[in-house]
Amino acid sequence: MNDFVSTADTATSGEAIEREITALCQRAKRAGRGTARLGDRTRAAALEQAAGRLRRESARIQSENARDLEAGRAAGLSGALIDRLTLTPERIEAMAEGLTVVAGLPDPLAEPIARWEVPSGLDIEQVRIPIGVVGVIYESRPNVTADVAALCLKSGNAVVLKGGKEALHSNSVIADLVSDELEKAGVPEHALQLVRSTDRRATEALLGQEAYVDVIVPRGGPGLVRAVAEHSSIPVIKHYEGLCHTYVDAQADLAVAEEIAFNAKVQRPGVCNAMETLLVHGEVAAAFLPSVAARLRAAGVELRGCEQACRLLPEAIAATEDDWRTEYLDVILAIKVVGTLDEAIDFINEHGSGHSDAIVTTNEESAERFLREVDSATVYTNASTRFTDGFEFGFGAEVGISTNRLHARGPMGLRELTTYKYLVRGNGHVR
Amino acid sequence: MNDFVSTADTATSGEAIEREITALCQRAKRAGRGTARLGDRTRAAALEQAAGRLRRESARIQSENARDLEAGRAAGLSGALIDRLTLTPERIEAMAEGLTVVAGLPDPLAEPIARWEVPSGLDIEQVRIPIGVVGVIYESRPNVTADVAALCLKSGNAVVLKGGKEALHSNSVIADLVSDELEKAGVPEHALQLVRSTDRRATEALLGQEAYVDVIVPRGGPGLVRAVAEHSSIPVIKHYEGLCHTYVDAQADLAVAEEIAFNAKVQRPGVCNAMETLLVHGEVAAAFLPSVAARLRAAGVELRGCEQACRLLPEAIAATEDDWRTEYLDVILAIKVVGTLDEAIDFINEHGSGHSDAIVTTNEESAERFLREVDSATVYTNASTRFTDGFEFGFGAEVGISTNRLHARGPMGLRELTTYKYLVRGNGHVR
Repeated sequence: MNDFVSTADTATSGEAIEREITALCQRAKRAGRGTARLGDRTRAAALEQAAGRLRRESARIQSENARDLEAGRAAGLSGALIDRLTLTPERIEAMAEGLTVVAGLPDPLAEPIARWEVPSGLDIEQVRIPIGVVGVIYESRPNVTADVAALCLKSGNAVVLKGGKEALHSNSVIADLVSDELEKAGVPEHALQLVRSTDRRATEALLGQEAYVDVIVPRGGPGLVRAVAEHSSIPVIKHYEGLCHTYVDAQADLAVAEEIAFNAKVQRPGVCNAMETLLVHGEVAAAFLPSVAARLRAAGVELRGCEQACRLLPEAIAATEDDWRTEYLDVILAIKVVGTLDEAIDFINEHGSGHSDAIVTTNEESAERFLREVDSATVYTNASTRFTDGFEFGFGAEVGISTNRLHARGPMGLRELTTYKYLVRGNGHVR
Repeated sequence: MNDFVSTADTATSGEAIEREITALCQRAKRAGRGTARLGDRTRAAALEQAAGRLRRESARIQSENARDLEAGRAAGLSGALIDRLTLTPERIEAMAEGLTVVAGLPDPLAEPIARWEVPSGLDIEQVRIPIGVVGVIYESRPNVTADVAALCLKSGNAVVLKGGKEALHSNSVIADLVSDELEKAGVPEHALQLVRSTDRRATEALLGQEAYVDVIVPRGGPGLVRAVAEHSSIPVIKHYEGLCHTYVDAQADLAVAEEIAFNAKVQRPGVCNAMETLLVHGEVAAAFLPSVAARLRAAGVELRGCEQACRLLPEAIAATEDDWRTEYLDVILAIKVVGTLDEAIDFINEHGSGHSDAIVTTNEESAERFLREVDSATVYTNASTRFTDGFEFGFGAEVGISTNRLHARGPMGLRELTTYKYLVRGNGHVR
């Protein structure tokens, strides 16, 4: 849905777009240096002020939003997309409240990392600093504009936003109001900028600004993430969907296992931390599967099983090799019976996506082996994989759930929008 | 000099090479899971054993090395390249000693990161783990084979090595001996593998293995780093040269400033942390520049100055805009007189490469402002930029000096070859 995949506007030359985006990113880089120097009090107050402004100008936001909705309906957008695009007074209030919440979070830059003295006598301090300029490319929800601006600013970064074409008027008014208040509160001009060109070449140009933009965070479906990752010369923090497993061990409390498996599959099947594959130890398969399967079926879940599972569950259809590698994001569950804990661990490491995987067991040794040996960003014992989430982790904010292995892995809070540098204090030291 | 830029060997099909490299990387991925589970005692003992084997088989290593040297001379390699390629008994001993030193370093995986309980009652632990599979692409020094293998294994990673074509026999025998000893000590097979194809398509194939290789570390000149970064779909830890500044403040001890500036430029001009540009506050330029310039000239340094600097230094030639943006890596120094601390900071942020920059001052406030506001990986007060180095930082090893902003920034120790995951312990938790 992002204009990234829409056609080029041939009225403007590619060079003009490139120049415009380069200039915008240069301004962001300069602004970022100033933003990094702001105290937390200024950053927090600026976000509070921006929240107030959004509340006061709710009517104006709604009227700009109405322009997007009208154009969207005329263009035949689906009901689901129109819903995502719609800003009601309640949603505007929630957006403002979101700014206030982020404003009040602990300063991610305050925390020291390390300090030590080396034998030469140099005093080395490692301190947390903002990444610099964060580029965020997102789809149709206009509230992301305020949300992301708050997360980036609270962590001392400048931000370049590129939203979906269909939300341009909504995004523009939100960005204008927020950035106007930020400036009044002492945040450098251009700390928050929105790319307003709807030409896909603008997005491509943004992804080539490695001299000025330090990281790209795509917020949207896997199609957007993949397109961004492919075209970007800038590091991308990716968040692909997860192919999550729950493994019910031979020594599991089967009532607990049923609750966890049911929750992991059914509570919200369309999200990345929902279970896609259920693994069950052969010793408990007959005792466990029929009961949980009945509950899953009653909740509308289609079951696809290995041969052994299908023998226990006549309603299940035979799973193919593809099923073990598919992120359904839907009310479908693949079920496999395994012979050992090792087989479960190996299966997850071979077929999973390294997102979130759980074991249900009362055997502490098996639990600890699973935790250590499953090579995923978040590994659970006796809990639903649905807890992989910035809020549930206590980060107070949700920047995303990274599927990268480096820099940020798993749920991302404000700290994952920071990096570090070394301050080295000498006394005339030479080598 | 890396075969990455050599021509393709048309006798083997691209597909065959691709298949071979894919299979090798798959094996590495599997081996990496096993390597991650080894205790530090096993990792350390394996490296000690490998060191002993290199010592015992010094003659064999030299005879394989002689084959490379003979081919290199026949191919007309320069004296400098032949020297880099040469393995003397002393260099083999140093290589073995390097393995022993890395073996004895503190375990980078032992250190806990954080553990907390969230209101839902979940216990969340963040632990350090190996990155997984590290791909290292390097040039003509065969000792890198042992060096890198040690760093990767000590941090629990599997490693895929791709050395220069001209060192193939030397690299092969070192890799064979080390990996043979690793296996005997209980390290999984394939934890250390060398790509032996000298076809550049093998390197290209390696850079496309994002399913199995988690990070690429190029070790070599900027040409190699750039080529790797451009072709890789895997995250690359880059280490480009540094354009480092020393700023002599109005309130500097000029004798200290002279020692620091001289050291930063002259001690080893061809390395990334050597000074390229000297900034001097206008108030002390006349008192400072003539004396340090005479010393620099005596050491063979060519001086290129701004208008003001040239007035004070008749021997200096006029600097052009290019000089402020050039990493000489040579006995050339650009000199600029600035009016204020702010001008110095802004100049460095605009022209530097974010590697290492220093202020010389006795004014604590200026020192602290410089530390905070210069946007470089390592910022110094009253010390030579030459200290940016893993050993000088006390890391006990030198993986490289990263010019990335994310994941690893500045000098890299073993810890920078690790990432993290979350272990979440529940008690039947569902959402």
